[in-house]
Amino acid sequence: MFVCTACGRKFSLEEHHQRCPICNEPLQLENMRGKIRNGNVWNRYKDFYAIPLNINYSLGEGDTPLIRAEIYGNEVYFKNESVNPTWSFKDRGTFVAINRAIQMGFERIGVVSTGNMAASVAAYGAHAGMDTFVLVSSNISKDKISQIVPYGARILKVEGDYGELYFKSLEIGEKRKIYFMNSDDPFRVEGYKTIAFELSEKVEVDYVFVPTSSGGLFRGIYKGFLELEESGIIDKIPEMVAVQAKGCSPICSSYPSNRIERFKNPITIAHAIENPYPPSGNAVLRILKNNGWKCITVEDDEIIKAQKQLAHNGIFVQPASATTLAAFKKLNLKDSRVALILTGSGLKTKSIEYDGEISSCKIENLENCEVFK
Amino acid sequence: MFVCTACGRKFSLEEHHQRCPICNEPLQLENMRGKIRNGNVWNRYKDFYAIPLNINYSLGEGDTPLIRAEIYGNEVYFKNESVNPTWSFKDRGTFVAINRAIQMGFERIGVVSTGNMAASVAAYGAHAGMDTFVLVSSNISKDKISQIVPYGARILKVEGDYGELYFKSLEIGEKRKIYFMNSDDPFRVEGYKTIAFELSEKVEVDYVFVPTSSGGLFRGIYKGFLELEESGIIDKIPEMVAVQAKGCSPICSSYPSNRIERFKNPITIAHAIENPYPPSGNAVLRILKNNGWKCITVEDDEIIKAQKQLAHNGIFVQPASATTLAAFKKLNLKDSRVALILTGSGLKTKSIEYDGEISSCKIENLENCEVFK
Repeated sequence: MFVCTACGRKFSLEEHHQRCPICNEPLQLENMRGKIRNGNVWNRYKDFYAIPLNINYSLGEGDTPLIRAEIYGNEVYFKNESVNPTWSFKDRGTFVAINRAIQMGFERIGVVSTGNMAASVAAYGAHAGMDTFVLVSSNISKDKISQIVPYGARILKVEGDYGELYFKSLEIGEKRKIYFMNSDDPFRVEGYKTIAFELSEKVEVDYVFVPTSSGGLFRGIYKGFLELEESGIIDKIPEMVAVQAKGCSPICSSYPSNRIERFKNPITIAHAIENPYPPSGNAVLRILKNNGWKCITVEDDEIIKAQKQLAHNGIFVQPASATTLAAFKKLNLKDSRVALILTGSGLKTKSIEYDGEISSCKIENLENCEVFK
Repeated sequence: MFVCTACGRKFSLEEHHQRCPICNEPLQLENMRGKIRNGNVWNRYKDFYAIPLNINYSLGEGDTPLIRAEIYGNEVYFKNESVNPTWSFKDRGTFVAINRAIQMGFERIGVVSTGNMAASVAAYGAHAGMDTFVLVSSNISKDKISQIVPYGARILKVEGDYGELYFKSLEIGEKRKIYFMNSDDPFRVEGYKTIAFELSEKVEVDYVFVPTSSGGLFRGIYKGFLELEESGIIDKIPEMVAVQAKGCSPICSSYPSNRIERFKNPITIAHAIENPYPPSGNAVLRILKNNGWKCITVEDDEIIKAQKQLAHNGIFVQPASATTLAAFKKLNLKDSRVALILTGSGLKTKSIEYDGEISSCKIENLENCEVFK
């Protein structure tokens, strides 16, 4: 069954629903219970999926590394999602959603995205041999489109309000029989549960920092922890911190109220989380308030500093991912165990100016080059 | 013991050697035998390593996906190395080499590379907290340097013959106590064995296509298969095909002779395998000749076509990786099982012009947009 995250009404899985037909809030699948099995992450956690997952549609997403570091007396674990097949966490969600699409008889899929999710859906659509539509804003940069085009999806530049396009695409999808697997699609969110599953296998953390845009990732990880707790596999759910860029922080800035408001004039270098009107914003607010958890904003200069610090630990991430380290530093934790969800690769974003040391030398003088002394 | 790949002389592992002090050909470690254990790839194959591997220096390299496709009546398996921590196969070699460096008491490491290997050594050096030198050619593009700089290594632009720099750096390394873990370093090659190990766990193939530049990767995969055969784990070694870009094919063009000659005026879009004077070229020639195996060249337009075809299967690789599919197509195989080693991510190279379909539409007309019909 689908359950509405707001009103709690239930709807049959046999029908194609993405949001609650009554209150238009996000739907999610009922929590599952189970035990852990062997194999890759989809096999290990098959009990936790209400639909069968056909591994032929997989590109090998998930089972990503967890890298340990010590920072300010805390044990910090970097969950490196940049090593997924299209180099972001989105692949976990796309895999589950494309399974759903095929089971429901869709022959066409689509997505509204200009970034990580666009590349992910284009890749999985291509792999499954499906007709794939990627709806982008008309002012998309050449840089971004070049990461989507190779997969051969049909790209459609849409003139008009990009936020509205999320809802519009769901409508069109119903009429035109295209499964738009957008940011907080219920099955996409199911895919993100695996991040909680994999984390719990390795270490019991006190905090998990999550870059939060549409809210789909945050909801998925939370649901994963809930299902593990209800299954008796973990004793407690770590405190989850929603992290947003100060320049586009609709969830953090709506925290005092109960209802997301559109964030005006968003501007941040963390483009991958620059969603001014997150479709799961209210759902994330409810989770944060029910648990007494925090929403933290970070400035662009803090993000750049954190991005550099992560690269100096060997992991080059996109600015959206670096928000987690920046937020962690703000909380001044001590003696804690902390997981940071590093959502996507640094190769995806236009390179930022770094102040690394670059010297020059002629080959005949190389041995005595200053830099080796 | 080290064994010279040419003269067979042996040298103690206690000393720091990289090439044979007598004939200047590549050294390699003696073949190991063992059995497969549990855990990640380094744990499963620990018997096959003459030095202990400390997982603290790992960034989670290896255990990459193997994706199956059917092409012209063959079972084709894509070994996707683009999901390693710095998005190329180089990370496997860097992990083993950095272990060696630390065990030998080096506090400084280095590499001669402008591409995948530079980023890999910079990342692992940063993670291990070592002083790291990356020697690049003085005309390196801004695009390439931007993928190395974030990790914080010391970058040195060297004016002069870039091919000579490989040998020069080894000399300087000895004098200045810097471990230059270049393309065919014996321990780097040990890391690449794991590709053969992982392949053998999943499927018994007839052919393995390997993009071949310095020769280090080809040697490593071959050595891995040899060790599995000598351990009784596999019955036969698949036929290995060395693949080069026509525009820089020193190994293929030297095949009739026994000695690599410098390839004049190299030019190809497959920059990651554009080495005109490969330091393990003779060693690869010896392997090919002893086994009666092929060296295949492919043109740039064939590479671009293959890159697109791979992306249409969901895997976006750099041109060097696409050479394998192009070469496979040339061989006109039937009913074979084939592995293609896809060495690095398509995000790493300047995007090529694709002819994907891009349409435009206004949001108010979206539903009736031509593309959805």
